[in-house]
Amino acid sequence: MRHKHGNERSHQSWGDMGMSEDMEAQADLRGELLEQAKFAQRAAHVLAVAGTQEKNQGLLAMAQALVDHQEEILAANADDVAAALGKGDGSARVDRLRLTQARLEEMRNGLRQVANLPDPVGEVTEAFTRPNGLTIAKVRVPFGVVGMVYEARPNVTVDAAGLAIKTGNAVLLRGGREALVTNRALVEALREGLNTMGLPQDGVQLIGRTEHESVDVLIRMRGLVDLVIPRGGAGLIARVVENATVPVIETGVGNCHVYVDQSADFSKAWEIVLNAKAQRPSVCNAMETLLVHRDIAPQWLPEMVRRLLAAGVEVRACETSREILKGTGDSAEVDAKTFLWENVKNATESDYATEFLDLIIAVRVVDSLTEAMDHIQRYGTRHSEAIVTEDSEAAETFLTQVDAAAVYHNASTRFTDGFEFGFGAEIGISTQKLHARGPMGLQELTSYKYVVRGNGQVRK
Amino acid sequence: MRHKHGNERSHQSWGDMGMSEDMEAQADLRGELLEQAKFAQRAAHVLAVAGTQEKNQGLLAMAQALVDHQEEILAANADDVAAALGKGDGSARVDRLRLTQARLEEMRNGLRQVANLPDPVGEVTEAFTRPNGLTIAKVRVPFGVVGMVYEARPNVTVDAAGLAIKTGNAVLLRGGREALVTNRALVEALREGLNTMGLPQDGVQLIGRTEHESVDVLIRMRGLVDLVIPRGGAGLIARVVENATVPVIETGVGNCHVYVDQSADFSKAWEIVLNAKAQRPSVCNAMETLLVHRDIAPQWLPEMVRRLLAAGVEVRACETSREILKGTGDSAEVDAKTFLWENVKNATESDYATEFLDLIIAVRVVDSLTEAMDHIQRYGTRHSEAIVTEDSEAAETFLTQVDAAAVYHNASTRFTDGFEFGFGAEIGISTQKLHARGPMGLQELTSYKYVVRGNGQVRK
Repeated sequence: MRHKHGNERSHQSWGDMGMSEDMEAQADLRGELLEQAKFAQRAAHVLAVAGTQEKNQGLLAMAQALVDHQEEILAANADDVAAALGKGDGSARVDRLRLTQARLEEMRNGLRQVANLPDPVGEVTEAFTRPNGLTIAKVRVPFGVVGMVYEARPNVTVDAAGLAIKTGNAVLLRGGREALVTNRALVEALREGLNTMGLPQDGVQLIGRTEHESVDVLIRMRGLVDLVIPRGGAGLIARVVENATVPVIETGVGNCHVYVDQSADFSKAWEIVLNAKAQRPSVCNAMETLLVHRDIAPQWLPEMVRRLLAAGVEVRACETSREILKGTGDSAEVDAKTFLWENVKNATESDYATEFLDLIIAVRVVDSLTEAMDHIQRYGTRHSEAIVTEDSEAAETFLTQVDAAAVYHNASTRFTDGFEFGFGAEIGISTQKLHARGPMGLQELTSYKYVVRGNGQVRK
Repeated sequence: MRHKHGNERSHQSWGDMGMSEDMEAQADLRGELLEQAKFAQRAAHVLAVAGTQEKNQGLLAMAQALVDHQEEILAANADDVAAALGKGDGSARVDRLRLTQARLEEMRNGLRQVANLPDPVGEVTEAFTRPNGLTIAKVRVPFGVVGMVYEARPNVTVDAAGLAIKTGNAVLLRGGREALVTNRALVEALREGLNTMGLPQDGVQLIGRTEHESVDVLIRMRGLVDLVIPRGGAGLIARVVENATVPVIETGVGNCHVYVDQSADFSKAWEIVLNAKAQRPSVCNAMETLLVHRDIAPQWLPEMVRRLLAAGVEVRACETSREILKGTGDSAEVDAKTFLWENVKNATESDYATEFLDLIIAVRVVDSLTEAMDHIQRYGTRHSEAIVTEDSEAAETFLTQVDAAAVYHNASTRFTDGFEFGFGAEIGISTQKLHARGPMGLQELTSYKYVVRGNGQVRK
């Protein structure tokens, strides 16, 4: 039986609506989402007690359904891509939206990998016996209904569905409107997969309403929705955090730093900075601002800037850095440094506060480790922060005192990632301190309960 | 040096203000709280890296300061109590507000006990090495600044301050206005204690503004306040949850059930139900509704009701229960049951939904374990739920399928408590699934970070 809300409606029905129809649709929005959430809650009760084997078979069936429906999915995606191109969307946006056979294969492999991971549900993480004979076990349990709010990235649809099913949660997927047709096709296939294994297909539902207000409704369904995870740009996340009454795990905004200490190994520092900035600049764990100790800057910085410019990175440097790059040495040196000087812009206060997500770096010379940590405290987003140094005392000070989800000594910030950490999966990277911090794998999609066994104990 | 905001102002300055002064005060509220929060954040940075020994000495000094300033504290409390009596507050409210030497001694002992507990900060809860040689440690860290919003219970002021300092957090205390004079005296002493040990006294601050709006400002100071814990009635908690942008841990509302299964041991069931209901009815882990299996009700229920009535409990029972209590047996039995019948009221739908927090119980006969679990799912608040049965299969079904912070087999719901669980402390009982669930001790007042150590690793 197909769920009668949301997923089966053709996407055309939401286009070209007249004013009064539009108003009616608004009024209807809350009712529609409430009903989807109730279906999700019922599915969650079944999924919460489903066996590991059962859930794994469901995941494999979801992967198989993506094979069986490949044609429809690619055709649906072609519609979305055509619409995006027609609207004049930029190539990066269109690229994120576009599905290929290879990308579908990646999604399917993702589901299969999740099937192979250990099931966190039911794990007893602590157990103890009290003097009165009560035994108390702390047991991992699913959250229940998880809402995902994200942008036009179809891979998130499949990833989130797989991680939710594995952890016994139902998921309500509110993807970006540009991917709506693709998401409908993907979710229809995923639900068919669940259904063939006898699991409740309402464990995976797409919210077919993509007006902004549907996010507002979703994130205020306290009592029906147990957790909301926003994934996307700063604006999306701020909107969710600002308006939610459902508990939220904030993800993703990363204004990350690498601090090159006076005792840094030159070569390690060059390689780490280049990697952290340029290996994949569009992601949250890429670095945005380089901090360099004053004592090392004259010797170390020019070569660093050369390498960054050679990698196509735009460099915005503080006055002190620019003076260093300007140089005063012999003529050959002056030439090289003049080259750097001319290609390096002035850094402004707002550059330090910006998550560029692009081949742009801000550079600032600092007087001390303390000044570096103050800068990070002021401008950082508590995501990933690194120190490069051979001085173990400086390293420990940095690792202890810098407040961030992940702090690094002599390694690239780019490692803050569920797969790189060995979790085998990732639903997002939390930048808050409540519940989950840093990369979130399967465990982070569970809560716990205390199971207490007695033989008639009462409280004195 | 004393902090110049909030704590030193005499409470009289907030009384008898003219209209324009009142408006000015409102405008000033946000600025005042922001400044307090900034002081708290600075203190939190120091406390986060304070050693265990240092923090413990601070806690003992806080306890000592409560001894040194006992006279002022009791005098301040007498003012609050007199004002409450003058307003005509009920005796229960006044009793919660009132301090005695014995209660002050309890508070001091609480601080000393917390000093003796293990320090969770810095604990490495997981550590692993990746194939690329990176070592990753998951380390407990403080949240930073914790906001407590609570009612007129001065003991919460001291408890929360102690738990915050032990876990390296700064705390902003927003207690009920009826306890303001008492809280000022307590916080002044606690700050003096911190100060004598060289710890930042702004780690403990009272929010001297007790208009409702000060709560709204506190719970929206995202970026300055890392966590808010409301403790109090349902209205207070709903207000915080509804309006907060800071992450919240919801505490306390408990509509708890005991389900007496058809295979229950009669005697265990009588004792557990009486304990869960009557031992301390005003707290969140007390039971509110008794569910009884139809097959056992005729034999078991009459004696249960007799015991409840004898303990002064008002019984509100469903139609089926009342029919059972009415009875049709021989004359002696009829007499006894008529007595019960006449003293038992009809239960309404709203009784099932009510957290009485009083000597009142709702009773409902159910046809099956499933019906009992459905009732709990519908009316429960996911706090504490118990089954009494000798059937281990029924017990496991209940423990697995009932969604609550603590689920019990053959024990009273009253055990959901940080001390009863052996945590040595309790900041509240969480009824949400994010981060902490059930009793919250020291560990639950910490977050974590990943500390990653490498020797030049970059991401491929």
